[in-house]
Amino acid sequence: MANDIPDIVIGRLPIYLRELNRLAQVEKKRTTSSQELGRLLGISSAQIRKDLSHFGEFGKQGTGYNVNYLVEQLNQILHLSTEWPVALIGAGFLGNALANYNGFVDRGFKITCIFDKDDEKVGQTMQSLSVQPLSELEETIHAKDIEVANLVVPASAAQQATDRLVEAGVKAILSYAPISLTVPPGVYVSYSDPVVEMQRMTYYLAPNREVQKK
Amino acid sequence: MANDIPDIVIGRLPIYLRELNRLAQVEKKRTTSSQELGRLLGISSAQIRKDLSHFGEFGKQGTGYNVNYLVEQLNQILHLSTEWPVALIGAGFLGNALANYNGFVDRGFKITCIFDKDDEKVGQTMQSLSVQPLSELEETIHAKDIEVANLVVPASAAQQATDRLVEAGVKAILSYAPISLTVPPGVYVSYSDPVVEMQRMTYYLAPNREVQKK
Repeated sequence: MANDIPDIVIGRLPIYLRELNRLAQVEKKRTTSSQELGRLLGISSAQIRKDLSHFGEFGKQGTGYNVNYLVEQLNQILHLSTEWPVALIGAGFLGNALANYNGFVDRGFKITCIFDKDDEKVGQTMQSLSVQPLSELEETIHAKDIEVANLVVPASAAQQATDRLVEAGVKAILSYAPISLTVPPGVYVSYSDPVVEMQRMTYYLAPNREVQKK
Repeated sequence: MANDIPDIVIGRLPIYLRELNRLAQVEKKRTTSSQELGRLLGISSAQIRKDLSHFGEFGKQGTGYNVNYLVEQLNQILHLSTEWPVALIGAGFLGNALANYNGFVDRGFKITCIFDKDDEKVGQTMQSLSVQPLSELEETIHAKDIEVANLVVPASAAQQATDRLVEAGVKAILSYAPISLTVPPGVYVSYSDPVVEMQRMTYYLAPNREVQKK
């Protein structure tokens, strides 16, 4: 696989995959087209064809894409053909929400261990997993061959937790801590911060009317 | 303000703002530089200078940026000088986590109403807010002049909820539902889907070792 495919293209593949799965499972569709996908996703059909063309020929002129085949191909490209075990660090409100999130099922990931530094949370059961103390982090990650982690700790604890995860062999971290993390080459971090997402939208809105009311 | 600033630039401004706030509040710094910010964020200093130059001259050659001044300017640019009231739709595990998230404080947003379709959740108290029935959505959003919403409902309910929010005057929706939403021009949607974020990272990893073990 070429390594020079822009990251922004890679970032759209999971969106295509999610919509294709929905078309297959909810709408029972067997074929689709770049036009239909584009309309559903708000992305131009030309963009979709160009993105997919980096990876091969998936559609036929006139008949479009076979949905199941394209799902299978995208699962292979994104390395989702088997399930990745995931370590969850942090068993607070958001950690609990992730542990109970049913959106992981059949999408390539399964939380297989949960850690918290709080003695009161350790030993509690979440989704049939017992919350473990942070002291067991390295041993468990090694034993379970875990390379993906969800980090749900306060900003002040996030870099130290990241360093331990990386040292233990984790290669991909989805962080909910509102802070930018430093990782070595070959380790990937993705961020989820609701405020950052909202701030990039309010740029486009007229300033909050409350100001004008004063 | 020019309207032709790339969305990717706008998307980095909240990251700069978050780091500047951390520098001011945690590290008690009064000045910084594009070099320092770049190192902390893993972004080139040239990129940071170029991004900020779209909006004016914020630094001085040799002395760098005044942190508090740049925070104030970014707050103005992103329309955060007053707090946006936010409607939360969905009071499940993740809705509860958002209601209890203390990362909103001082960053421009405050959840001021919570809705759920489930009669058992209606009337419950979350962070001193009483969960309201969905039937009160439009009236409350009008009365509280709300333009920002967090959508935390199942995929199957997300588009209908979105249509109602838009009809009631909401202009910016952060959706946690794993589905692409359709909105009219002038309304902004941002998505948070942990699986999409993880899938775009596993592309870069070697396929899960479990396959090789078989």
